[in-house]
Amino acid sequence: MNDLLLRACRREPVERPPVWMMRQAGRYLPEYRAVRERADFLTMVRTPELAVEVTLQPVDLLGVDAAIIFSDILVVPQAMGMELTVEEGVGPRFHRPLRAAADFDRLADIDPERELRYVLDAVRLARRELRGRVPIIGFAGGPWTLMSYMVEGQGSKAFTQAKRLLVEAPDRAHALLGRLARAVGTFLAAQAAAGAQVLQVFDSWAAALGPRDFREFALPYLAEAVGLARASGVPVIAFAPGAGWALEELADATGAHVVGVDWQTDAGDARRRLGGRDVALQGNLDPAWLYAAPDEIAARTRAMLDAFGGRGHIANLGHGIHPDVPVAHARAFIDAVKAWRPA
Amino acid sequence: MNDLLLRACRREPVERPPVWMMRQAGRYLPEYRAVRERADFLTMVRTPELAVEVTLQPVDLLGVDAAIIFSDILVVPQAMGMELTVEEGVGPRFHRPLRAAADFDRLADIDPERELRYVLDAVRLARRELRGRVPIIGFAGGPWTLMSYMVEGQGSKAFTQAKRLLVEAPDRAHALLGRLARAVGTFLAAQAAAGAQVLQVFDSWAAALGPRDFREFALPYLAEAVGLARASGVPVIAFAPGAGWALEELADATGAHVVGVDWQTDAGDARRRLGGRDVALQGNLDPAWLYAAPDEIAARTRAMLDAFGGRGHIANLGHGIHPDVPVAHARAFIDAVKAWRPA
Repeated sequence: MNDLLLRACRREPVERPPVWMMRQAGRYLPEYRAVRERADFLTMVRTPELAVEVTLQPVDLLGVDAAIIFSDILVVPQAMGMELTVEEGVGPRFHRPLRAAADFDRLADIDPERELRYVLDAVRLARRELRGRVPIIGFAGGPWTLMSYMVEGQGSKAFTQAKRLLVEAPDRAHALLGRLARAVGTFLAAQAAAGAQVLQVFDSWAAALGPRDFREFALPYLAEAVGLARASGVPVIAFAPGAGWALEELADATGAHVVGVDWQTDAGDARRRLGGRDVALQGNLDPAWLYAAPDEIAARTRAMLDAFGGRGHIANLGHGIHPDVPVAHARAFIDAVKAWRPA
Repeated sequence: MNDLLLRACRREPVERPPVWMMRQAGRYLPEYRAVRERADFLTMVRTPELAVEVTLQPVDLLGVDAAIIFSDILVVPQAMGMELTVEEGVGPRFHRPLRAAADFDRLADIDPERELRYVLDAVRLARRELRGRVPIIGFAGGPWTLMSYMVEGQGSKAFTQAKRLLVEAPDRAHALLGRLARAVGTFLAAQAAAGAQVLQVFDSWAAALGPRDFREFALPYLAEAVGLARASGVPVIAFAPGAGWALEELADATGAHVVGVDWQTDAGDARRRLGGRDVALQGNLDPAWLYAAPDEIAARTRAMLDAFGGRGHIANLGHGIHPDVPVAHARAFIDAVKAWRPA
């Protein structure tokens, strides 16, 4: 059993850092695209056999040290009753975004074993099929990120609808964020119960909030979700890309075992800033650097590993892998981590 | 003559901070929309009478302490030979983005008094029509931001084409960035010669770069442009939104008189970090906070002013004003600054 990831999450000694990539089960793999030709994105997410097939691909093809269940952060709002579509080139969309107060009232509370059973079944199947080769990671979106999608209806540059809600109807925002924190937390705990050995929360739109709003509308709910997830006993990774300024607060407020570091943050700075805390770090190679030649990728990967220093570090990209990266380049990254040893 | 802005740029004593808003000549004003109905965006930019009409609107209607010439950062690449269109709801687009080496070679070097004469004429006319009421600000885009638009063809979420260029053909990127730094710097100096009393450089896509790339591909060229602008003798404001981590480097490397602070950065932190330097700060109210009720806007504005502390501060938003903000809310922001006094 390759338990590098589990040991790194707990800052135990490791021969070398474990490595995986956000969006590693994704379009850059021809084998993924082959599955994707037979089924649309949401069908893949909702069909455990298909989800597990692509979940295992990067383990088999690239030798990463962890699998992450193939799914999407928007399954939670969908389970609460919002109609979701994912179109090629357009991305995920809610066709009736939350606008009036009544839209918020219509949302249902969820029982993960009922509405999100297909994710839990996929986790169970993946755990079985992996046979201990590498750990399986479960995940969910952060409450603020989910709410901003639910209000905007889709990805946005400035998130003005969602931010407008924060100043125009803060009580309504807080009420929904509280519901989302509990939904996300129980969903994560259910994934752990189904066999997930590590959990990650992606607060992907943290960058849309300045410090005051982040502290009021993102951090407390992220902390509540992480707290519920922690109670399951497995390590939790908290990732708030674009809010590199908040790494210390993220660690302190959430109590996560691991804090994700985005590619915009200097790896050495992150380590210095969090060095005194009992928290591991994950990240943070710029995914655009995978466009470089393989030997250049290896050199930049080694520099990143040197900066993090080995122990208590999970090697990863600082954001999801881009879909047009050559597989050989992803492999150059993985292999460079595997060849590296701490000084 | 209201010279608050000029004094604040040089950190001289002021009764209160000057205030203006990025994109203050914009769609949130009904009077702007009335002009816009008669002419499309680029016609307004290229017709000094129209550009000056909207440039003066916020001075007349809101009583801001500065006018900024109505224009667009993409006039520089356009002057270098790139075909630009601006469609409603789509935004600016270059229809033949730079891809092959030959695309780069085709670009022309510019003489601002020839290819960008219409901007300089607008500056001259605005200066005349303002009759000293408030200073007129000239501006340009940062070299990295212009190059990323030229390579992408339009705004982008991840700027993968532009960032791909940085690792695949760094020499080609450096050559273009050098040309852009000189074009931007001479254009800024020409605006000062035409009467602009303050100059601002917007490196709007700084957030697309991690620290290593920012230091290699953005900062040196921004510094070169600011250096050429400084030689004109007027104060220069450098703004790199989304790169709040780099405020110190921005101040030190560019020698700008003023550093812009985005809304993602805590105002008090910015002041503490730059307190020991001879540099003024500009910013940084979250433009989404202008959706709040006017008395709430006033309270948040006062808190922001308290955090910056008065002297050496230019009150502004931390990004351009959103087009759907009520004019009364913009006025609440302006008036709160005007009523504030340092402790």
